Amino acid sequence: MDKLITLLTDFGLKDGFVGTVKGVIKSINPKADIIDISHDVSSFDILEASIILNASYKYFPQKTIFVCVVDPGVGTDRRPILVETENYYFIAPDNGLLTLPLQKQRIKKIIHLTNEKYFLRRNTETFHGRDIFAPVAAYLSKGIPVEEFGQEIKNINQIDFPWPQKRDNKIIGQIIKFDKFGNAITNLEYIPESFKEIRLKNYKITKICRNFQEGEKDKPNVIKGSFGFYEIFVPEDSAKEILGLTIGDKVEVFL
Amino acid sequence: MDKLITLLTDFGLKDGFVGTVKGVIKSINPKADIIDISHDVSSFDILEASIILNASYKYFPQKTIFVCVVDPGVGTDRRPILVETENYYFIAPDNGLLTLPLQKQRIKKIIHLTNEKYFLRRNTETFHGRDIFAPVAAYLSKGIPVEEFGQEIKNINQIDFPWPQKRDNKIIGQIIKFDKFGNAITNLEYIPESFKEIRLKNYKITKICRNFQEGEKDKPNVIKGSFGFYEIFVPEDSAKEILGLTIGDKVEVFL
Amino acid sequence: MDKLITLLTDFGLKDGFVGTVKGVIKSINPKADIIDISHDVSSFDILEASIILNASYKYFPQKTIFVCVVDPGVGTDRRPILVETENYYFIAPDNGLLTLPLQKQRIKKIIHLTNEKYFLRRNTETFHGRDIFAPVAAYLSKGIPVEEFGQEIKNINQIDFPWPQKRDNKIIGQIIKFDKFGNAITNLEYIPESFKEIRLKNYKITKICRNFQEGEKDKPNVIKGSFGFYEIFVPEDSAKEILGLTIGDKVEVFL
Repeated sequence: MDKLITLLTDFGLKDGFVGTVKGVIKSINPKADIIDISHDVSSFDILEASIILNASYKYFPQKTIFVCVVDPGVGTDRRPILVETENYYFIAPDNGLLTLPLQKQRIKKIIHLTNEKYFLRRNTETFHGRDIFAPVAAYLSKGIPVEEFGQEIKNINQIDFPWPQKRDNKIIGQIIKFDKFGNAITNLEYIPESFKEIRLKNYKITKICRNFQEGEKDKPNVIKGSFGFYEIFVPEDSAKEILGLTIGDKVEVFL
Repeated sequence: MDKLITLLTDFGLKDGFVGTVKGVIKSINPKADIIDISHDVSSFDILEASIILNASYKYFPQKTIFVCVVDPGVGTDRRPILVETENYYFIAPDNGLLTLPLQKQRIKKIIHLTNEKYFLRRNTETFHGRDIFAPVAAYLSKGIPVEEFGQEIKNINQIDFPWPQKRDNKIIGQIIKFDKFGNAITNLEYIPESFKEIRLKNYKITKICRNFQEGEKDKPNVIKGSFGFYEIFVPEDSAKEILGLTIGDKVEVFL
Repeated sequence: MDKLITLLTDFGLKDGFVGTVKGVIKSINPKADIIDISHDVSSFDILEASIILNASYKYFPQKTIFVCVVDPGVGTDRRPILVETENYYFIAPDNGLLTLPLQKQRIKKIIHLTNEKYFLRRNTETFHGRDIFAPVAAYLSKGIPVEEFGQEIKNINQIDFPWPQKRDNKIIGQIIKFDKFGNAITNLEYIPESFKEIRLKNYKITKICRNFQEGEKDKPNVIKGSFGFYEIFVPEDSAKEILGLTIGDKVEVFL
């Protein structure tokens, strides 16, 4: 059993929440090796967390445990779950956060986490990252079998991901996220080589760049990016700011 | 001797200060396991650091070493100290930072760190986190006895924590911190179940929520939160922004 | 062979890029010990990265591997390189990022990273941190000899560091960076004890402080700081804001 546990949350890094979660894990399994994916997911933004996790999980060793806590429903009856896939374990609230990463994996088992034996005793219902998800991950990393943590269930909730729409001679995509550099990540995973034109606002783009330097200055350019989706970029600048882009802006691919 | 060392500072994450501190620790004890609690404490804000540490330390394994550096007096004659409690070690400047976490622990020994043998040789007096606190923590994690690091002392400085005031039929509390979600943490650790009303600005609150979803939209709600204090929150929103709150705002509990 | 790998990038902490890089390293060498120096370098700011690395590297254990990715030319023909010095390994794009740290070290070997055997197979040319620099660092940490990674080369690119100018009776320095506290780091490494006066804007400064508390309130003060350069500071405040400073502001030392 490998000992790698990753964390993805919207906790931020200021308040010590992440440190606390790590303290809980280390108290249960001192040998756990913990890696942060991100703690700066926008508060309550399940879609953003799903996009980030989707871009990252496949670069981790087999049997890695992904603890994902963006959890607006903390303390309500939304279910805490553990999903075992062929290669990985995912622990999260059942709110759709795992939608994108699970799409391309074979699911072996889904467990509704109900066995309080593996939770911390808790006085508040405000911090299940600390009281439920962290200890379950730590016990799992010690080799406790997945069945021990609760009942097997068959379905989990999905987010309503804004997939591109195919219409006649075009694919209608949109911007779903900006990265730190101001690149605009679209929901387009595939653009056929024979495409005629990509339209964004009043701009028309006719080539896909192979690297950022190939892009035209001060204009929108398209590249297959690090998230696995096509991105709009401006070389060495923020496409978001230069072009005044926002989440939801249409990106149309004419075929 | 366990090897877990945690860091809590106001160094920020941009300048490489935290990496440097870890380099020093690893140079002395390559096996040290280092965990960040926070490095985004507001510059020089000893009270904030004390609140964050207080919420976090008890989730760590016994014998964890807490290195806490919010140190406006760096390089002056304020004392660097090491406090051994029944379960933990705390290393910090003697400026009151440890006030809250030490309140509920039995102190076994306080050492004024004076033995330069365990410091880095230094050219500047601007970075004791690197030159004093980190190496002492690293040597301590290797099993050097606490007495080795300096003279035992009996008292340390306290911060003037704004405890709630009891007056006739009410407890007068206040907001002491906001978390990343905009929740307003108060200084109230205990509210009797029989309370009549909580007043904040022109709002009157009559119930304590058990989870965030029980709260009323766009209004202040009260919950026992993750810091161990009662918090004011607005469901899936920032209480700070929606209600226009600031540190020091009164929160009155009528009994 | 030591297993410590450090990371210095402009990736930010939000998008999961850093987690992905660590996943790649752990997939190749599960025992690698990874430490962050900074991921908040300003986007594409090679000079800033060089200053941060220069202040930090020498506090790490011998044989530490420094992975440094501020890489506006990612995917172009700028060379990925590995530099072995007497004490350390540096992996970076050949864009001058290593200029300052290499200045005071004896270089043993420079390798142009060309052996694709040690790269990830890649679909995009947007993320060499993940696809080239991380796997090379991981294989190096496992003991693969430096010669294995590519051809030896003799020269690498330098940044045009703004060194101070000596003119008659003065040294003309400038501000090159601000730290998290608002201290203004200059390019001055050495000021002779016999200096007459330091001028910044309309201020005249006549002493070098030994600690921050010795400084005069609301005025610029000078101290040898944590980056190894002299800094302008205002006690317990932000020199940048109080004095309205910007990068490039002249700091003149009259001799």
